[in-house]
Amino acid sequence: MAPSKKGILERLDAGEVVIGDGGFVFALEKRGYVKAGPWTPEAAAEHPEAVRQLHREFLRAGANVMQTFTFYASDDKLENRGNKLTFTGAQINEGDALVAGGVCQTPSYLSCKSETEVKAILKKQLDVFTKKNVDFLIAEYFEHVEEAVWAVEVLKETGKPVAASMCIGPEGDMHGVSPAECAVRLVKAGAQIVGVNCHFDPMTCVKAVKMMKEGVEKAGLKAHYMVQPLAYHTPDCNCQGFIDLPEFPFGLEPRILSRWDMHKYAREAFNAGIHFIGGCCGFEPYHIRAVAEELAVERGVLPAASEKHGNWGAGLEMHTKPWVRARARRDYWENLKPASGRPLCPSMSAPDSWGVTKGHKDLVQQKEATSQDQLKQLFDRSKSH
Amino acid sequence: MAPSKKGILERLDAGEVVIGDGGFVFALEKRGYVKAGPWTPEAAAEHPEAVRQLHREFLRAGANVMQTFTFYASDDKLENRGNKLTFTGAQINEGDALVAGGVCQTPSYLSCKSETEVKAILKKQLDVFTKKNVDFLIAEYFEHVEEAVWAVEVLKETGKPVAASMCIGPEGDMHGVSPAECAVRLVKAGAQIVGVNCHFDPMTCVKAVKMMKEGVEKAGLKAHYMVQPLAYHTPDCNCQGFIDLPEFPFGLEPRILSRWDMHKYAREAFNAGIHFIGGCCGFEPYHIRAVAEELAVERGVLPAASEKHGNWGAGLEMHTKPWVRARARRDYWENLKPASGRPLCPSMSAPDSWGVTKGHKDLVQQKEATSQDQLKQLFDRSKSH
Amino acid sequence: MAPSKKGILERLDAGEVVIGDGGFVFALEKRGYVKAGPWTPEAAAEHPEAVRQLHREFLRAGANVMQTFTFYASDDKLENRGNKLTFTGAQINEGDALVAGGVCQTPSYLSCKSETEVKAILKKQLDVFTKKNVDFLIAEYFEHVEEAVWAVEVLKETGKPVAASMCIGPEGDMHGVSPAECAVRLVKAGAQIVGVNCHFDPMTCVKAVKMMKEGVEKAGLKAHYMVQPLAYHTPDCNCQGFIDLPEFPFGLEPRILSRWDMHKYAREAFNAGIHFIGGCCGFEPYHIRAVAEELAVERGVLPAASEKHGNWGAGLEMHTKPWVRARARRDYWENLKPASGRPLCPSMSAPDSWGVTKGHKDLVQQKEATSQDQLKQLFDRSKSH
Amino acid sequence: MAPSKKGILERLDAGEVVIGDGGFVFALEKRGYVKAGPWTPEAAAEHPEAVRQLHREFLRAGANVMQTFTFYASDDKLENRGNKLTFTGAQINEGDALVAGGVCQTPSYLSCKSETEVKAILKKQLDVFTKKNVDFLIAEYFEHVEEAVWAVEVLKETGKPVAASMCIGPEGDMHGVSPAECAVRLVKAGAQIVGVNCHFDPMTCVKAVKMMKEGVEKAGLKAHYMVQPLAYHTPDCNCQGFIDLPEFPFGLEPRILSRWDMHKYAREAFNAGIHFIGGCCGFEPYHIRAVAEELAVERGVLPAASEKHGNWGAGLEMHTKPWVRARARRDYWENLKPASGRPLCPSMSAPDSWGVTKGHKDLVQQKEATSQDQLKQLFDRSKSH
Repeated sequence: MAPSKKGILERLDAGEVVIGDGGFVFALEKRGYVKAGPWTPEAAAEHPEAVRQLHREFLRAGANVMQTFTFYASDDKLENRGNKLTFTGAQINEGDALVAGGVCQTPSYLSCKSETEVKAILKKQLDVFTKKNVDFLIAEYFEHVEEAVWAVEVLKETGKPVAASMCIGPEGDMHGVSPAECAVRLVKAGAQIVGVNCHFDPMTCVKAVKMMKEGVEKAGLKAHYMVQPLAYHTPDCNCQGFIDLPEFPFGLEPRILSRWDMHKYAREAFNAGIHFIGGCCGFEPYHIRAVAEELAVERGVLPAASEKHGNWGAGLEMHTKPWVRARARRDYWENLKPASGRPLCPSMSAPDSWGVTKGHKDLVQQKEATSQDQLKQLFDRSKSH
Repeated sequence: MAPSKKGILERLDAGEVVIGDGGFVFALEKRGYVKAGPWTPEAAAEHPEAVRQLHREFLRAGANVMQTFTFYASDDKLENRGNKLTFTGAQINEGDALVAGGVCQTPSYLSCKSETEVKAILKKQLDVFTKKNVDFLIAEYFEHVEEAVWAVEVLKETGKPVAASMCIGPEGDMHGVSPAECAVRLVKAGAQIVGVNCHFDPMTCVKAVKMMKEGVEKAGLKAHYMVQPLAYHTPDCNCQGFIDLPEFPFGLEPRILSRWDMHKYAREAFNAGIHFIGGCCGFEPYHIRAVAEELAVERGVLPAASEKHGNWGAGLEMHTKPWVRARARRDYWENLKPASGRPLCPSMSAPDSWGVTKGHKDLVQQKEATSQDQLKQLFDRSKSH
Repeated sequence: MAPSKKGILERLDAGEVVIGDGGFVFALEKRGYVKAGPWTPEAAAEHPEAVRQLHREFLRAGANVMQTFTFYASDDKLENRGNKLTFTGAQINEGDALVAGGVCQTPSYLSCKSETEVKAILKKQLDVFTKKNVDFLIAEYFEHVEEAVWAVEVLKETGKPVAASMCIGPEGDMHGVSPAECAVRLVKAGAQIVGVNCHFDPMTCVKAVKMMKEGVEKAGLKAHYMVQPLAYHTPDCNCQGFIDLPEFPFGLEPRILSRWDMHKYAREAFNAGIHFIGGCCGFEPYHIRAVAEELAVERGVLPAASEKHGNWGAGLEMHTKPWVRARARRDYWENLKPASGRPLCPSMSAPDSWGVTKGHKDLVQQKEATSQDQLKQLFDRSKSH
Repeated sequence: MAPSKKGILERLDAGEVVIGDGGFVFALEKRGYVKAGPWTPEAAAEHPEAVRQLHREFLRAGANVMQTFTFYASDDKLENRGNKLTFTGAQINEGDALVAGGVCQTPSYLSCKSETEVKAILKKQLDVFTKKNVDFLIAEYFEHVEEAVWAVEVLKETGKPVAASMCIGPEGDMHGVSPAECAVRLVKAGAQIVGVNCHFDPMTCVKAVKMMKEGVEKAGLKAHYMVQPLAYHTPDCNCQGFIDLPEFPFGLEPRILSRWDMHKYAREAFNAGIHFIGGCCGFEPYHIRAVAEELAVERGVLPAASEKHGNWGAGLEMHTKPWVRARARRDYWENLKPASGRPLCPSMSAPDSWGVTKGHKDLVQQKEATSQDQLKQLFDRSKSH
């Protein structure tokens, strides 16, 4: 790291907008390098050039933060899925971007392991972040505030800035703790930045972070706020988020946000006082570029990738067909209600709701793949729901 | 080229299934390297590593053919859009894949230039293909069979195998020539492979190629068939295809095909006797992988990228949540009707239909970008339609 | 009948627009007087005041023609359904309206009875029409032009004007005879008015009648034209019409046309040169009123029921809420795209298509109700389709 | 009234299910006798046979209660709409049904008239109810609990049983008073039956009444409960209900509930402990019949109109087409997701939300129809919302 690089807290304290990257596992799954289901990050070792290319694209799109590609990289998770991996971390270090080391929820917690055991698992991942000297740490994708607090406590020991991001919506965590209360506990545990990521669409996530902010302010505390939502529309989710939607994870295409949806998201988040704005599953580089373009005035800069993008469709001024040239204007795209081309499909789904969470035997970790017999039972149960 | 590599015609003659790649301009637009509107391929020179990475991903997904990234690279088109480019061509040459040099329709034709002029424009692009010794040539994305025939005549002079692919649907070309008649003319002009690409969704394209096949057979001729459709559902298109849809090109997300849609497409194409099966705009590597997986038995091989993909969702057997594990089965994904998450949007759109085609003054090429005045007039006209 | 009443042909010859009524069986089913399934008209005897009230409402809405409530009243049909009825006919005779006696397709035809047998069945129904001295006759709801021609031949013997209306769409009759050819045969058989009714939505029916008109004119013949479509949107029907839609007959609500849809229908029909414009299943009195209001200028009169209806929503000028008053204008209602309030439902359905028609054993008439065993077999077959 | 007829409270106290009728103004508007906008009940005088026929149909469908057709019949409302009417009341008295006299919210309240003034207006309507000796009284369609309480206080003076029904959803009244609190105040004011009617779909209304019941029980009070919802799906409403939907009142067709939706509603209401179950705007006789059929076992009787209705589609066993016979079963209709046939329409709408309620100048009553100038201003405002 160049010593002159401004840290995440300096930037946020100065009122800067910091733009995050998008979710790597979903983007690399579509490119053929990550397996849906286990979602483990072995691509970093197996196909580093593919991972680097995606980093490059998000940076070019305007991202200021590069998260290490270490989702689900805790030892218990990797082992759980039949991998024993020895690598990790950020393979890229370009320009002015901050590198953030990330940890996320552990199978051990869902299996009711003790605080000591869970913290030990989380701690193991810190070594490499310390060695690589990442700029700050993110505890993200926690469904239970109890485990998120433990993670913050572990991360704080490094002395680096700590962000804590839960995968919850306005209904709160899986034990029913409200976003406001979650945020207060995380700030009290030492997180300087709090927010939500994954599981819900941008507007739902912004709503949840607003509730966090109100809670923190009501408690007389101070924090910065972050949001890294899905790039999928999820108005029909219940409290567990998009995982419960019948389309997860292989039928989500019709829900993908357009770049114009991203403009609305970026504006809404900024107006809510959230200054660390990024993405999660479903985000492609052009989605991050749209966030950066919406906030170009506030940030004083357009991203590099905007050389290949006309503002609000302006590039269409050069299209061959006159009726397409007529779409080269903001109000056209801002008001478009895009059709799905799927007249036999509904617009919303009824999510699965098995009512199973931490401690339930179905969630206890097992090293073996689910057996055919176990799967048969699951299929039968899924039909009775 | 290794002398041992089997050519496109040898493969098709032997009854092999040949898998094409996906459309580069749309994929690279999302990655930040191509500008929507002009859609010109300067990324090949500006960001060769990004183009190479995409080539690599399509190959890994199972593609046997790499098309040179030369869409809209005729001199008149490039000049039209304010670029004067000196480069072109395929920057990649990996494994067993065939390299195909492509030419497409020219602005000159729409501006009513003569056969001589249009042929001269097309011919210019051949030099580089000859120099690079591509394996075969494709004349693709032609809306008018007259120009497509000219292109075939030009390409034939190289002595290489020639494929001809029009961007038409079952209603035929922009002058109302039926797919059957188009195919007959192209075969008579010397094309060994005929088919359609772009402009319509897979099922519509397969239907059009079936009509071509019937026409060719009825005429007592012989040919191979190819199809490279959009990865967007377009049941609501008129004869000009997806360009007329109000969502083109920045609001197409809800129309993106899922991998399961691709399985149906691959099977339908194969059953129709089409053996060169690929993709165009909207295709991502995982879409091509789905085509390759559906035809794995017929081809005797799974693509490399299938190491990261469980058959019909099998990877979900290892998912943390039991109700997601219950989705690890073919009938679940085969029957899913995915929701859009967009309850305020319709499922179909009314396409623009200005009734403007070759020879209309609105389509005559101009070197300058459309002026603000011209745009204003277009906006007003678009409202009256 | 008062001698001064102008006949149907006089009116049409004079260029008048004649407005039909709506379908009685569906309207009376909703009111509790007709049983869906058999659809037989015993209400005329059991609850004459309810039938009379509906006649009154359609007249008040602008209808010029009252069809006798004798749908499916042929002896073979009634017997088929376990009823042996001794009554029939029109119980109302008000004002200037014409009374039309109707016959429709017979189970005997589908069971492959001979021309002689079918004609005998049809003839039996004529006695009562002759006795009651109806103003003209309609042979309607025929799926096969062969049987429709037989019906016209029978009706012609009365000397009264004969209209012939088939329940077909643009794809033609169940044997694939085109609307144009059907119309020609019917006119040659002696029908003075030809058209279509039931089975499809208004725009589809108008399209089919246009094809009839072109056929008749091409053949150098002359006729008047009629259309009496469904009040349900059916863009997803196959050639057999709405009966094949999964929603038939108890889930059709979301498809019901609004009054504004009826304005478009009336205009389209009139512009196509169709001057006998009415309705069939799903039409309520306010739908007929909308037809009459759209053509008020052409007809020179508003219907009586318009005293309770402001033109294009004008009645809302007196609404309590200002934002509802703001809807008191034509362009609001003309452009409204009404939502279904059903986000879990699709916008189109895949129709049943068992490929069964005349002569198939499943269609042969039987006197007994379908047995439980037969039903079980049907349910199993329906799942495999 | 025969002295032997059991009163409403006796029935509810005995645990009987009492079925209400449907909304008269909407049903009669479709039949041509009521004008949308003013919605005043002059049809009772002008076309008594049409009103009587509808009463008869609801009774035949299973209704135990006939509400007098006196919606919006307060003097200030009638005058407001340019009518000065001298009639009112129930013109029918058949069998065992109870007759309920109804009053509803007054324009005077919205114009901020005093309690004395509003009560005087309400009181005036009581005279006729007393003279006709109705069985009980309903204060219904109140948006503000304050006015509803005044109405209950007025009605109590008659000594007859009083039901109080507000047109609110789970968000409470227009001043934000919760359903629970509204119910408590109404019970304290003397209402023996409380509930909601109109404005929302059945499931939403049941939810609101459940909240009322919880509130009443928590307060240690006792009451009976009623629900008379719309027959329109309204998942997209805000707190003001369906009036704010852009489809109100002339584009609601796609939202109409099917009979099967009514089965679910009746069961849900019954399970929630609501025993006075009826309908409001949009209900047709067959909707009430479906409620009565769902609760046939609990009530020990099928309605008369069920002679024309096979249980769960059983009447289709006699349909001509075998694939329609295959629909003669409960699970078919219970699981059907009916399509709208409107692929260009969305499934949900964004409601108007002008934020205008009691006391706002836009709501102050005026005797004149809105002028063209005022309308112009409204149109312009509606575009800016």
